[in-house]
Amino acid sequence: MTPPPPGTISFGGGIPDPATLPLPGLAAAALRVLAEDGVAALQYGGSLGDDGLREQLAARYGLRYGVKLSPDQVMITTGSSQALDALCAVLVDPGDAVLTEDPAFTGSLWTFRAHGARLVPVPVDDAGLDVAVLEERLRVLRRDGVQPKLIYTTPDFQNPTSVNLTFRRRLRLVELAEEFGCVVVEDTAYEEVRIDGTPVPSLLSLAPERVVQMGTFSKTVGPGLRTGWLLGAPQAVEHAARGRTDMGSTITLSKVMAGFLADGALDPHLERMRRVYQAKRDAMVQALGETVGGYADWAVPEGGFFLWLRLRGGLDPAKLQPLAWEERVSFVPGYRFLVEERPLPALRLAFSQVSLEEIPEGIRRLGRALERLGSAR
Amino acid sequence: MTPPPPGTISFGGGIPDPATLPLPGLAAAALRVLAEDGVAALQYGGSLGDDGLREQLAARYGLRYGVKLSPDQVMITTGSSQALDALCAVLVDPGDAVLTEDPAFTGSLWTFRAHGARLVPVPVDDAGLDVAVLEERLRVLRRDGVQPKLIYTTPDFQNPTSVNLTFRRRLRLVELAEEFGCVVVEDTAYEEVRIDGTPVPSLLSLAPERVVQMGTFSKTVGPGLRTGWLLGAPQAVEHAARGRTDMGSTITLSKVMAGFLADGALDPHLERMRRVYQAKRDAMVQALGETVGGYADWAVPEGGFFLWLRLRGGLDPAKLQPLAWEERVSFVPGYRFLVEERPLPALRLAFSQVSLEEIPEGIRRLGRALERLGSAR
Repeated sequence: MTPPPPGTISFGGGIPDPATLPLPGLAAAALRVLAEDGVAALQYGGSLGDDGLREQLAARYGLRYGVKLSPDQVMITTGSSQALDALCAVLVDPGDAVLTEDPAFTGSLWTFRAHGARLVPVPVDDAGLDVAVLEERLRVLRRDGVQPKLIYTTPDFQNPTSVNLTFRRRLRLVELAEEFGCVVVEDTAYEEVRIDGTPVPSLLSLAPERVVQMGTFSKTVGPGLRTGWLLGAPQAVEHAARGRTDMGSTITLSKVMAGFLADGALDPHLERMRRVYQAKRDAMVQALGETVGGYADWAVPEGGFFLWLRLRGGLDPAKLQPLAWEERVSFVPGYRFLVEERPLPALRLAFSQVSLEEIPEGIRRLGRALERLGSAR
Repeated sequence: MTPPPPGTISFGGGIPDPATLPLPGLAAAALRVLAEDGVAALQYGGSLGDDGLREQLAARYGLRYGVKLSPDQVMITTGSSQALDALCAVLVDPGDAVLTEDPAFTGSLWTFRAHGARLVPVPVDDAGLDVAVLEERLRVLRRDGVQPKLIYTTPDFQNPTSVNLTFRRRLRLVELAEEFGCVVVEDTAYEEVRIDGTPVPSLLSLAPERVVQMGTFSKTVGPGLRTGWLLGAPQAVEHAARGRTDMGSTITLSKVMAGFLADGALDPHLERMRRVYQAKRDAMVQALGETVGGYADWAVPEGGFFLWLRLRGGLDPAKLQPLAWEERVSFVPGYRFLVEERPLPALRLAFSQVSLEEIPEGIRRLGRALERLGSAR
């Protein structure tokens, strides 16, 4: 497929708004680290990573999730992708069953596949991962003598659907994980990108010994830092740390991020960032209502970077895409996030990176493409 | 085993001298990157990594090794450990044969094992990896219908022996790799830490289509940056990049390093660094001559961080270690670097991190431990 033409408005990647990245705060922390920590910032660290950042994260997320969290339960990683990779390296052998929400973040599916996992998909509906189907899948696996290793889910602002897992389902999910002896991987990539609504207790807070979180600064402070973490269930974190083959993540940037957190710079930054995404989300919702109402349905996400558009009347995103490119707008078709590709009449629209001004025009272009597809039926 | 007591002089890790790490040059580059590249330094990059750093490395090492090197033949990684990991992820399936020098850098052996490789050891002598044995091993594997995937070697300042692979052997090694269809992994971790002597052409320069180098700034600019690379044979690099699951290495630090290189700051820094290691190496050699001559033999390394001490008369490093700790000096016993543990009457002494002033005292302590071990026989 040829790439979309120049001038295309992209609702594609889960990329933060450049204007939200806290350059001055990071520069201040970086200068201080180089002046105060000196060469310590340039040396090797242990396999868990920089002590200072682990202390900051343990304090922050212990408080945020209402759990007792020691710095030894935190491992610094090269983005949360590496957190998942490190966990899979020690827990998932080729052929092992991994239960995953479906659709799901393609990067995580890619990592599971790289470790030879047998992926067992569990559908996502308006209330998040369907725990009744999860239970059914777990029972079938048990009947077949298969011990699944992991259950993977993004309970807050799920990627790509932006759905939140309900509290009731969270309780049931960790009960099932307990009953069937699985580690739960809670992907918190977007959890701090809440625009409005009320937070729901994390899976970690419901089962601190059974849940590990993969977290990242990529959506909030900057993907280029590649600074993420694995935290939670002590055994899983320790095991993952012992299995690392990369001699740890950058101490230099970990100390910068520890300084940024110690400065109290993160929360004011997140507040500013949320207002930017609120405006963008609202602009997209308004434009959709004015333009594509006849062709699609959507829910207003309480956070994250995406709006999940469900097409009506058998409209096919695969057929929509070339028309949209002709109209110079791009998106990610929903089927791309599936464990096994099948028709899925939905699109993921990222409102995060595109400028506020471009959103209405981009949605108008999408509307024209939908009209052309609709009238061609 | 309990750790060595406080006040122990450590000849243990392959850790750079803190005083050699170029803090001001990095700080200058970091400030400029944050001011000039701004948020671009905080965003995602492609799977090969930051374009600017890949251009700098392609130019530097193309010139240094006398090969045509395009930036597309360079992938930025989280230290050279991850370069090896990324290569193994796409080339080594569980059970695949990997030929490795023996003794070897334990981190690399660890990575091969993490990928389920079947390690085929090839001994190292005073002229480096023994290519006659390599050939024998390759013939046995072919006879048995086994296609080995990789040949791993550190031709310059081999870790732990500090031996250089002779030019004649380099030629033979790449001939054999060609004949038997293996990719050669050339570990260049210490190649730029040359103190004296004459450089020998790299394996890459002898077989640019067959050799990939794993390189790093960890020994020269700072391990805490975790900035390394995989470069060389186009197919292998492209394959490794496509197989990545970590969404790339930090763009922020890559841009800092690209700036450091563009400033021309690396070479003057390396010159200063080499003088520091020269003084330390010479101090260790002198102290050894004065103190342990009766118990051991050694060659003077032309570079790298280590001196390889071969014990005479059946002295056992495993028995020496507790005595050395009592005397408050530490080292790494040679058998730790072997593919399969067996008695090996040798030690690795790192002169890199310890202060110049402590070297004579540390070696005197080692001498006392050797004396006690010798007289206890």
